[in-house]
Amino acid sequence: MIVSMQETATDQQIQQVIEHLVRMGFAVHRTTGERQTVLAAVGARIDFDTRNLEVLSGVEHVHRISAPYKLAARSFRPQGSVIEVGNGIKIGGEEVVVIAGPCSVESRDQLFIVAEQVAKAGARGLRGGAFKPRSSPYSFQGLGLEALKLLREAGDRFKLLVVSEVMEISQIEVMLPYVDIFQVGARNMQNFNLLRELGKIRKTVLLKRGIAATLEELLLSAEYIMAGGNYNVVLCERGIRTFETYTRNTLDISAVPIIHKLSHLPISIDPSHGTGLRDKVAPMARAALAAGTDALLIEVHHDPDKALSDGAQSLYPEQFSKLMDELRMIAPAVGRKIA
Amino acid sequence: MIVSMQETATDQQIQQVIEHLVRMGFAVHRTTGERQTVLAAVGARIDFDTRNLEVLSGVEHVHRISAPYKLAARSFRPQGSVIEVGNGIKIGGEEVVVIAGPCSVESRDQLFIVAEQVAKAGARGLRGGAFKPRSSPYSFQGLGLEALKLLREAGDRFKLLVVSEVMEISQIEVMLPYVDIFQVGARNMQNFNLLRELGKIRKTVLLKRGIAATLEELLLSAEYIMAGGNYNVVLCERGIRTFETYTRNTLDISAVPIIHKLSHLPISIDPSHGTGLRDKVAPMARAALAAGTDALLIEVHHDPDKALSDGAQSLYPEQFSKLMDELRMIAPAVGRKIA
Amino acid sequence: MIVSMQETATDQQIQQVIEHLVRMGFAVHRTTGERQTVLAAVGARIDFDTRNLEVLSGVEHVHRISAPYKLAARSFRPQGSVIEVGNGIKIGGEEVVVIAGPCSVESRDQLFIVAEQVAKAGARGLRGGAFKPRSSPYSFQGLGLEALKLLREAGDRFKLLVVSEVMEISQIEVMLPYVDIFQVGARNMQNFNLLRELGKIRKTVLLKRGIAATLEELLLSAEYIMAGGNYNVVLCERGIRTFETYTRNTLDISAVPIIHKLSHLPISIDPSHGTGLRDKVAPMARAALAAGTDALLIEVHHDPDKALSDGAQSLYPEQFSKLMDELRMIAPAVGRKIA
Amino acid sequence: MIVSMQETATDQQIQQVIEHLVRMGFAVHRTTGERQTVLAAVGARIDFDTRNLEVLSGVEHVHRISAPYKLAARSFRPQGSVIEVGNGIKIGGEEVVVIAGPCSVESRDQLFIVAEQVAKAGARGLRGGAFKPRSSPYSFQGLGLEALKLLREAGDRFKLLVVSEVMEISQIEVMLPYVDIFQVGARNMQNFNLLRELGKIRKTVLLKRGIAATLEELLLSAEYIMAGGNYNVVLCERGIRTFETYTRNTLDISAVPIIHKLSHLPISIDPSHGTGLRDKVAPMARAALAAGTDALLIEVHHDPDKALSDGAQSLYPEQFSKLMDELRMIAPAVGRKIA
Repeated sequence: MIVSMQETATDQQIQQVIEHLVRMGFAVHRTTGERQTVLAAVGARIDFDTRNLEVLSGVEHVHRISAPYKLAARSFRPQGSVIEVGNGIKIGGEEVVVIAGPCSVESRDQLFIVAEQVAKAGARGLRGGAFKPRSSPYSFQGLGLEALKLLREAGDRFKLLVVSEVMEISQIEVMLPYVDIFQVGARNMQNFNLLRELGKIRKTVLLKRGIAATLEELLLSAEYIMAGGNYNVVLCERGIRTFETYTRNTLDISAVPIIHKLSHLPISIDPSHGTGLRDKVAPMARAALAAGTDALLIEVHHDPDKALSDGAQSLYPEQFSKLMDELRMIAPAVGRKIA
Repeated sequence: MIVSMQETATDQQIQQVIEHLVRMGFAVHRTTGERQTVLAAVGARIDFDTRNLEVLSGVEHVHRISAPYKLAARSFRPQGSVIEVGNGIKIGGEEVVVIAGPCSVESRDQLFIVAEQVAKAGARGLRGGAFKPRSSPYSFQGLGLEALKLLREAGDRFKLLVVSEVMEISQIEVMLPYVDIFQVGARNMQNFNLLRELGKIRKTVLLKRGIAATLEELLLSAEYIMAGGNYNVVLCERGIRTFETYTRNTLDISAVPIIHKLSHLPISIDPSHGTGLRDKVAPMARAALAAGTDALLIEVHHDPDKALSDGAQSLYPEQFSKLMDELRMIAPAVGRKIA
Repeated sequence: MIVSMQETATDQQIQQVIEHLVRMGFAVHRTTGERQTVLAAVGARIDFDTRNLEVLSGVEHVHRISAPYKLAARSFRPQGSVIEVGNGIKIGGEEVVVIAGPCSVESRDQLFIVAEQVAKAGARGLRGGAFKPRSSPYSFQGLGLEALKLLREAGDRFKLLVVSEVMEISQIEVMLPYVDIFQVGARNMQNFNLLRELGKIRKTVLLKRGIAATLEELLLSAEYIMAGGNYNVVLCERGIRTFETYTRNTLDISAVPIIHKLSHLPISIDPSHGTGLRDKVAPMARAALAAGTDALLIEVHHDPDKALSDGAQSLYPEQFSKLMDELRMIAPAVGRKIA
Repeated sequence: MIVSMQETATDQQIQQVIEHLVRMGFAVHRTTGERQTVLAAVGARIDFDTRNLEVLSGVEHVHRISAPYKLAARSFRPQGSVIEVGNGIKIGGEEVVVIAGPCSVESRDQLFIVAEQVAKAGARGLRGGAFKPRSSPYSFQGLGLEALKLLREAGDRFKLLVVSEVMEISQIEVMLPYVDIFQVGARNMQNFNLLRELGKIRKTVLLKRGIAATLEELLLSAEYIMAGGNYNVVLCERGIRTFETYTRNTLDISAVPIIHKLSHLPISIDPSHGTGLRDKVAPMARAALAAGTDALLIEVHHDPDKALSDGAQSLYPEQFSKLMDELRMIAPAVGRKIA
């Protein structure tokens, strides 16, 4: 940690800050320049609230010098993580994994029609919501356990990984027999109790970035899961909230190269939630691949106009199939391949 | 709902949109102007996803014309809500209610020292965290049930309302005997399952705005609670995330007059979380009062340098006492009073 | 324009709003639903400040139904614009045009070395700043006219279009003999006097989006130029300001498909300013192409460590050359080609 | 400057960074901790682009330790600046100065009616736009020189300072005989050529914060003016762009205590532009005063429904008068007074 003192700081103030740091367990190196004094504090603690120093008299600014996460940092596994998700499928390797399916599981027919079509087009995973608390109290809320069973059955039939969102600790056990990947939604990215419990299982967790979360905060949430021993974490960018209102969110594709620099964890992109509009999904999926994403999550529905949720951002199966063809053309340019 | 068609929309496209709207249960009025056709759709549904229309061919834009909430809207109770919180204290009336206390309950001594001092200075409520999941997996996590008991005891001793944060459905029952106000934190503003359960109790819920939530979304979350029959909801602005990094968040004080226009629910301000820095708390608390807030939440600690969490944003008791004096001077300018 | 009245609006209030609209020249259609009254106002004015209605008693919300721009709208030229920039090069056609060069023109040697290398790699345009007002008053400020002459000479020698930024009205005439494309920087996107003057020339204007500008505001600025008769406008996305601080800006690649839907004007992407970091430039340039951009602006410097400005975001010539090869592999996937 | 190296950085990489820093004129102190090496670079340059270090191999992060401005920093005048604006009126002293008037000067009658009324209510300055480039090319553009003359005449008649916006270098000389304060609008906050010219005059400059500018950037723009010798700068917060759309901008009132800590310059608040809606102006003006603002800018129009610009955010004279009474009640709570 670096503490830069105000130019007008007195020696007594500087001494007090040094003592405070020493009391917190840091070793302190003092540098006095022409204009001001700077203190470098070195130590093992990574959870220090720098504001505790900022409010001391004479302090101008405090900068953390090391990332507040360890297990999620690139230095922990410089070669990068390749996560074995099941069925011999790996995320983070040469193949870019595409996971597709409806926003919500609505019925057996719906799910099987969609699953068959996305499998045929080259998807490796089947996504579908079982529990759907919605922002309006007056909307469709999901099929629950019934949906999980259908997902598993369809997954087995069409050789697709099963991905579904977990929203509460109590759902983890319910979901365990049915899903291959537990998705943590953007709103739960900082539900630390849930993250801690997911650290105790060994199945893959797909962790979505909150709409107002920095990438550092995303990595800190991954650290929560990993601190429990579960290193099978795949990050996911799905759009952040900005002043632009034309799209529901602004999909931050630069998250891909940034995460690849900061962390060894694979990163995926969800262009469906990231844009919220069907005709923007294919361009942004292609862009994500060209930027180097390790996986893609795409909403597909055989009859989006009648979808019970998020129909507007779901691709028709034939749009999805066309997109997969385009992705296959782009993949070699970034040294990757698509199934 | 208003659907504006593209200038180039064909009659067939317009007809399809009309049929779609009718199928969804809307009555449709068509207006054809010089440049384009506009459809006004009137109906009872308030949870319609407007994007389902935006993706139809020929559609330019879709505007919702009525707010997506009803019970939280000003029109539901044009005279405004005054919520009886307990002990004869009301939020939303002439008195502006100040709730103060430490970020986390750390010990009996700490809590009682702080409680006595804030009560003497004129606070009406005692706040304190019992459950503290933190953004770093390596930080202090709260005293739990023990904290709740201490809060109740201190509240009774010093005639203060007890306010504490609920983070999971399972905590509601644990907390019920001890707290007067259930606080819902910013990260849980859209935890709809939790909101629904809080709709079943009758104690007051203090609902904090998420750091990336619009005021409309805040009201929609209030609607969730009210839809269950619990109309005792107090809203709380505690800072939103913006590009400015000097403060932890940007406290949006304009939320006060806006909420007073859009809703009948009282609105409170939390300048401690809203700024994150002790020396900004008093100016922003005064500003909130001058803007018309119905309540204030302020972190106070008798020894902030040793606080286990958020010490940097906690006032010393004597700072709090001075602030209360300033607030008493300002209150008459907005037709209010402070205890 | 659609005016939705509050549920509690009286008939007299509704009547006043109607009269106000009629006075402003609108034809008004009234729709009364179960809960509220809605007024649709149709007319020719496109510059109406909707807030003038929002403050009238009884009004809940006002929505503009037509875009506030006409000439920049897709409907003006549904087939899209292909802009002839010079040298037989077109922006908006099958070829994706790459413009490269240093941030600032620093010397003859620097410019000619870079120009030769980018030309060899396939660039079609040469960019370079002549006037460089910087955010610090203590930084390098550009070579001015000398830089323009060097740009023209290098452009002619290596058959590259010359692109340079215009910052003031007085520079237009100075630049006219030397540049093929006038770049308007993000900070000048709403310098309306400058835009009006650029509407009087017939050379191409490359208009960059402001860091806090919505896409609608970008199109409105394009309208300013076009209103003067200059339809040769190419838009440019170069990053918006968000809460994420890892990158200087967040490059909003979804601007590409959105602009293509809303407008007939070509759109370009500047990944150098959009990310501010060299190792993010190539991934984001590939992403932009995969999303369908019509042109790319890329900073290249033969010795970026010694660049007088923006060295950190400049590619080495060999990095640029490698990027061009990757772009050539991606282009067919989106039906485009690269020189 | 502090350069923190990656944990995996080699000694050779560290050496290269040190050499780079020395070449740039810095003295370097090296600290090697358990996990990583940190370099503290001390020197006189304040305009260094830290990204030039960030792209070197082995570098994790670079932090600037001193503010990039000097003259605008608090340490330059720890006691704070009190600026004599004219007529014996000072900004930054005990009196909080209120400047009021119409958005645009529209006619002699309009200006004189408004000026008389705001003067009677206690305003000390008269604001009014002479040059009004608008975001739509189809709107009213201002009366120009005629407006300046009217402002001066009205200012003299009613003993009000004259404040008007300068938009281009060429207007400075035109305006000099007529105005007491040159206002620089939010869009021109980083028009560095204009700022430099304003550094050459000695009249007060009221510098508005850009809608996407950090407070540090605002101070850096003030530095530009001061570097030319003009220390008569008053800063102004007028709302920043956030994701919230209910208000035109989010007025960041915390700018007041922050600027007071970082800088010696006075800070003013413009609640009219900051909210964009008449009924939010008075609450936010009161809030600004309670937070400690040194001045207020408020739009007042005798007939806002017919105003040619920004009528929706202008107060009626009687609203302004009532607000002044409220401000007089609040001022003592912050140790200030209102005329």
